[in-house]
Amino acid sequence: MADPLASWNEAAAKQSILEFVESVTDPGSPAFVSQAERIAVFDNDGTLWAEQPMYFQLAFAIDRVRQMAPDHPGWSTQAPFAAILSDDREALAGLTEHDIVEIVAATHSGMTVEGFQASVADWLGTARHSRFDQPYTALAYQPMLELLEYLRANGFKTFIVSGGGIDFMRVFTEEVYGIPPEQAVGSMGKLAFEMRDGNPVLVKQQGIDFIDDKEGKPIGIARFIGRRPIAAFGNSDGDLAMLQYTASGAGAQLMVYIHHDDAEREWAYDRESHVGRLDAGLDEARERGWTVVSMKNDWNRVFGFEE
Amino acid sequence: MADPLASWNEAAAKQSILEFVESVTDPGSPAFVSQAERIAVFDNDGTLWAEQPMYFQLAFAIDRVRQMAPDHPGWSTQAPFAAILSDDREALAGLTEHDIVEIVAATHSGMTVEGFQASVADWLGTARHSRFDQPYTALAYQPMLELLEYLRANGFKTFIVSGGGIDFMRVFTEEVYGIPPEQAVGSMGKLAFEMRDGNPVLVKQQGIDFIDDKEGKPIGIARFIGRRPIAAFGNSDGDLAMLQYTASGAGAQLMVYIHHDDAEREWAYDRESHVGRLDAGLDEARERGWTVVSMKNDWNRVFGFEE
Repeated sequence: MADPLASWNEAAAKQSILEFVESVTDPGSPAFVSQAERIAVFDNDGTLWAEQPMYFQLAFAIDRVRQMAPDHPGWSTQAPFAAILSDDREALAGLTEHDIVEIVAATHSGMTVEGFQASVADWLGTARHSRFDQPYTALAYQPMLELLEYLRANGFKTFIVSGGGIDFMRVFTEEVYGIPPEQAVGSMGKLAFEMRDGNPVLVKQQGIDFIDDKEGKPIGIARFIGRRPIAAFGNSDGDLAMLQYTASGAGAQLMVYIHHDDAEREWAYDRESHVGRLDAGLDEARERGWTVVSMKNDWNRVFGFEE
Repeated sequence: MADPLASWNEAAAKQSILEFVESVTDPGSPAFVSQAERIAVFDNDGTLWAEQPMYFQLAFAIDRVRQMAPDHPGWSTQAPFAAILSDDREALAGLTEHDIVEIVAATHSGMTVEGFQASVADWLGTARHSRFDQPYTALAYQPMLELLEYLRANGFKTFIVSGGGIDFMRVFTEEVYGIPPEQAVGSMGKLAFEMRDGNPVLVKQQGIDFIDDKEGKPIGIARFIGRRPIAAFGNSDGDLAMLQYTASGAGAQLMVYIHHDDAEREWAYDRESHVGRLDAGLDEARERGWTVVSMKNDWNRVFGFEE
């Protein structure tokens, strides 16, 4: 039999996953969980694929600004767009949250959901990650792809519960992760139902309807899934409420943090990072005995494109 | 081979369903649709179960007011609660939309989602429908239960997309319809994530987050499912936008209206009804050749408890 978790080293993290899955799927075990209730939730950025040097959705938005610029002549002198168009790296590094909201609003509204998703698909097919010179989807973590498959083979239903935009993620979750759109929960902007040329379309609006981060994650789970997960995977403090919510269920649960500690093959960051900050969550994981995966020690391969 | 749609008479409506399913599941057909894209959406009230003489969720709320009254002494003199507590049928028949919002707010907020669902489960187990003296869940339509099963046997994923409350419906959709909570889309109130005695809980708040009716239905589909359905079933003008949205996809689609025209076995109502009004939808269905199911002529059995 091939090892379903071949990219995981034989160590405590892998062992805790295998033992959990064996216990909840063994009808003779006191921890047995019926198939319908085997719900596993995964954060996306930093948990299923990389999130450095910036969230990939922001990289998309920045590339979209460049692409849309000919139709917006004012942008060349208008912050924050001017910094993007003149490739001012210093200004780009100092983008504020307000700048990012403006960039996202300009690139994520005014079009139909289908039109937006076509532009995402186009970008995913052509853009390359600056460090690895690979398509962004190649930066999915090979051990996590194996884990998703392994859980599904054991009757789990796998969901994404991410702060990322729902219309953005759904373009690739099925192909890359085997997770269909209806199992991807994310942040969402307002939508309007309109008739255009007699055809009903959904048009992305400015303004946010739901932020699927921090306390929003258990709320998103209650709204979209309607069942408490028995397994939850994250990498940042933004996932802590989701792990706490999972941990408070009756029966067996598995809470896992992916710890970015491999600067050589990926990146090393945690308590001080402004992307994927893991501070309170790391303390709580250690106190409560949750599984903390060291990318450096627990994974023998990070990306599928490695040797 | 047993007929999977045994409660459907051999007539045009049944034929249109069978032909549609055969064409989208036959790999040799130009209308073939991959399994992942076989999404079927169903309204609930009046489409999968009855909705007379009032929405069943409102019947629950009214019974809850009676149950909660001892903790709310002021209600005995306060509209609209006084009408319920004194069983003033005239006042009850004249409940305004504002009254109903107040009744729902009083009975659907302040508790955890799990606590609320326990009270719904309790009610479903004990309450009886006034006309049929049956549990409310027995008022699911037998032909629709067969249809759900038949679609799933043909690789469809079945979803509810209902104006009903999501936390209410999810108590029974799996047992009654075979539709798991994560495939039930509905209206939803605000939720708060709170720590109570160190345990994370989700508490139902006053105030509405999303109304899954009319234009809200395609929006709910885009948000919760992320794929355009290829089959949609409704019974009222509140479902029209969902049927229009389904009809505007590429490829084969099936749009079906259930027409309540059987006063003897169920109820007869359409253009003038204030519950489940079907007016513009009926015209559009006839113009565009959508399937209109006559409960009287197309169904040889309405409820499972009939002989």
